[in-house]
Amino acid sequence: MERINRWRSHGGWQEVWRHDSRETGTPMEFSIFLPDAVAQGPRPVVWYLSGLTCNWSNVTEKGEFRAACARHGLIFIAPDTSPRGEGVPDDAEGAYDFGLGAGFYVDATEAPWARHYRMRSYIEAELPALVAQHFPADMARQGIMGHSMGGHGALTMALRNPGRFRAVSAFAPICAPSDCPWGQKALGLYLGADTAAWAEYDACRLIEAGARLPDILVDQGAADGFLEGQLMPERLEVACARAGQKLTLRRHEGYDHSYYFIASFMADQLGWQAERLRAG
Amino acid sequence: MERINRWRSHGGWQEVWRHDSRETGTPMEFSIFLPDAVAQGPRPVVWYLSGLTCNWSNVTEKGEFRAACARHGLIFIAPDTSPRGEGVPDDAEGAYDFGLGAGFYVDATEAPWARHYRMRSYIEAELPALVAQHFPADMARQGIMGHSMGGHGALTMALRNPGRFRAVSAFAPICAPSDCPWGQKALGLYLGADTAAWAEYDACRLIEAGARLPDILVDQGAADGFLEGQLMPERLEVACARAGQKLTLRRHEGYDHSYYFIASFMADQLGWQAERLRAG
Repeated sequence: MERINRWRSHGGWQEVWRHDSRETGTPMEFSIFLPDAVAQGPRPVVWYLSGLTCNWSNVTEKGEFRAACARHGLIFIAPDTSPRGEGVPDDAEGAYDFGLGAGFYVDATEAPWARHYRMRSYIEAELPALVAQHFPADMARQGIMGHSMGGHGALTMALRNPGRFRAVSAFAPICAPSDCPWGQKALGLYLGADTAAWAEYDACRLIEAGARLPDILVDQGAADGFLEGQLMPERLEVACARAGQKLTLRRHEGYDHSYYFIASFMADQLGWQAERLRAG
Repeated sequence: MERINRWRSHGGWQEVWRHDSRETGTPMEFSIFLPDAVAQGPRPVVWYLSGLTCNWSNVTEKGEFRAACARHGLIFIAPDTSPRGEGVPDDAEGAYDFGLGAGFYVDATEAPWARHYRMRSYIEAELPALVAQHFPADMARQGIMGHSMGGHGALTMALRNPGRFRAVSAFAPICAPSDCPWGQKALGLYLGADTAAWAEYDACRLIEAGARLPDILVDQGAADGFLEGQLMPERLEVACARAGQKLTLRRHEGYDHSYYFIASFMADQLGWQAERLRAG
């Protein structure tokens, strides 16, 4: 573990760390915001999973999360979205929606992806263990959120691990990856053509199969260009309604898929998470 | 005038515009945030002048100004820092501190710079006239702020135009450009070797020569790597103390020169500006 940068910001430290990952077999970088409140003892952790093409820097520069995290005393961690570096295979045509920057938070089973593309195990197990060891994090109080592909990651990781996350929310998540082009391409290549293997990486199918969370908050821009073709929040609404899963889906007129949208509702989502992370 | 992009954000519209500038002889771009409050009538304007290497995008993506502008009903405008494009001369060695991205908010008098490098007239006269014509801006209530080279621009533009700006503040401004390497290089090349011509572009010398403002707010990171060699806020303190010019200089332990610093104090500076822009 090596700290490669840090900046004083909003009454805390915004840091960037690099380490060699056992799961991905590559160096991995993540950012972590440590509010000054850590001086008084361990603080809750909010995981933020980023979307296609992103690494830690997008939300760290444009997400406007630090003021709210300092106010609520939250640690905020932004991992990368895929393994990177020499020897890591990429999309055959260098497309933005598969391979580098597009790990989809799965453990790939198909060649040549299975060797490095292990973002599920990296974020579910390896990175939390490192964080617990190196930072003043209260791992009994974890929340998770994400954007787009990362919203898919946050929802599926929470649904597969009941009880681990006290707060689960998302910005414009991919809700039904088995049924949208982004998901079909990525899950097909990483996991193979048998769609049974995709079920544990599909929020709607996990809920249909019985997975439950105390509640879910989703913010969605109504002018998001990916709304109908890729994100399909109405599928999540139907799945939750049928299952009796509590869901608050807020549609925001005029907002698109960008960080201008995310930043607009970040403080509100963090306040919602903080209520749940203080509880219990 | 052509709008080239816009995004819904924080209860307003973040827009980017392009126009052909008479002053610079080039196309110029700027960003403007319009809070929804403009629907009730013209709103005050805050000008933000950016630092070396920047264009409108840096503060627009990383400045965290929109929530405060929406709350206070402020229009926020971020111009570019120099002319750009084919035929615009640049630093002989492509250095970051002169030429493209480094107009220093002067009207150059020396060849080959005088033709295009007219950022003073562009921002003092041409752009405000365009803004008054095209946007619901209350031009009787203008404030100005800036960062580093843009802090220098904000201070000198306000000191040269008494009564125009009701609020003047800066993040880590270049306070005495006649006496620091960035300023000496830029003013020497743009204006020539006679330092008498530099005086109207030097905040300390303008104050020494009698220019006054109601008050000035400066935020400065104490861990800023340019503090002693380039920014010299102690020169501004001395000049203001000698002249009886009101100045609030806040030094912030641990903060550097980056947008992680600027964003930390942006809401506070905008609140300070909003108090003055509502008055009178």
